[in-house]
Amino acid sequence: MKNLLVASTSTIYGGSFLQYLLPQLKEHFKAIDTLLFIPYARPGGITYESYTSKVAVALKDFSISVKGIHEFDDPQKAIENAEAIFVGGGNTFVLLDQLHRRQLIEPLKRSMEKGTPYLGTSAGSNIVGLNVKTTNDMPIVHPESLSALGLIPFNINPHYLDPDPDSKHKGETRETRIKEFHTCNDTTVIGLREGSWIAVKGERMILKGELNARIFKQNKNPFELPANSDLSQLL
Amino acid sequence: MKNLLVASTSTIYGGSFLQYLLPQLKEHFKAIDTLLFIPYARPGGITYESYTSKVAVALKDFSISVKGIHEFDDPQKAIENAEAIFVGGGNTFVLLDQLHRRQLIEPLKRSMEKGTPYLGTSAGSNIVGLNVKTTNDMPIVHPESLSALGLIPFNINPHYLDPDPDSKHKGETRETRIKEFHTCNDTTVIGLREGSWIAVKGERMILKGELNARIFKQNKNPFELPANSDLSQLL
Repeated sequence: MKNLLVASTSTIYGGSFLQYLLPQLKEHFKAIDTLLFIPYARPGGITYESYTSKVAVALKDFSISVKGIHEFDDPQKAIENAEAIFVGGGNTFVLLDQLHRRQLIEPLKRSMEKGTPYLGTSAGSNIVGLNVKTTNDMPIVHPESLSALGLIPFNINPHYLDPDPDSKHKGETRETRIKEFHTCNDTTVIGLREGSWIAVKGERMILKGELNARIFKQNKNPFELPANSDLSQLL
Repeated sequence: MKNLLVASTSTIYGGSFLQYLLPQLKEHFKAIDTLLFIPYARPGGITYESYTSKVAVALKDFSISVKGIHEFDDPQKAIENAEAIFVGGGNTFVLLDQLHRRQLIEPLKRSMEKGTPYLGTSAGSNIVGLNVKTTNDMPIVHPESLSALGLIPFNINPHYLDPDPDSKHKGETRETRIKEFHTCNDTTVIGLREGSWIAVKGERMILKGELNARIFKQNKNPFELPANSDLSQLL
């Protein structure tokens, strides 16, 4: 039974890395001794080692040993054997490129499907959707495919940002970008605001946190879905 | 001799489409009777016909006939025979995907190199650089390659946006994104603010408009370059 925590962001304003999620993670990771961290998204170009240490520091009050996937000789086996997995944020293209190159998409999928607890933040949440065509990131590398894990039947737009009515900037708003996505794709998009996450347990997908999510369906007006809604109603 | 006008945006705050550029365009397009418009980027999913009409309306005081590339049976020939070319903004991935699929990259390059006056705005400016890995757009389609025209030896980041010191949003700033680009790429990036453009005449590349550009070089701190600077000093 799938057991995923799919978060918009690792960090909310005024808080430290993962801080706002700690109460959930206490529960999510309660039965495990070791966590496999996948640092490939490298926010700001941080090294795998530093990124992994950052996770260990954030989870220091849990009695969990955090190991980065780069510490293993066989990353496919590391995933297969993992008690729990966390894929951190950063650049979604860099992350997905590594997952494709190292042929880790299928092992990750199998692991999630058999029930390994998963945490994704930002880029790590983007890859839980059908594809990453609704990432906010710059395409600084060109992965062979934009297909992702498809563990939920939607796409995620993490860090969803409402238009600023006072803006004088003429670049596209997030809403405009997602509407453009729907001129070429029919996948429903969950605009997940910072502080929100999706708790996936088997086929149930509950929107958690205090905020609404903004939902974009092809050929429909976008609408708000309140916290604690089950996203399966969107199917 | 190359003769390109590479603009950050088609529209500045408070103005209409192309309005702020009209004095430059009067000069840029002075010797021509017909303009070939390439509407492939389809901002907001607008049709090729509507987008082309929008350009004709904006240039109505010029005695120029505007034709969309979709009106020609052979787009490669249309480019070859064009007196002047305008590639409009929208989604950079959608634009580049069409250019690759229709094998228009080389014809466009040849046309620019022989001196056909070119106007690019936003996505149409992104493609003038070496590749589009510094676009702000969502990857709503997956082009076979992110390589672009390479008519200038840089990448463009159009609609360049300074960080908002009051922001509570934890998504990456534009500067952070471009720094991430430089963890995987060594191309210098011109952060072109709205209202700025680059006037390329042969090997001269002058920053025009009233604003500085922000320059990002790999392994260097970003810095400001004043209006009217020649960008060839960055080589």
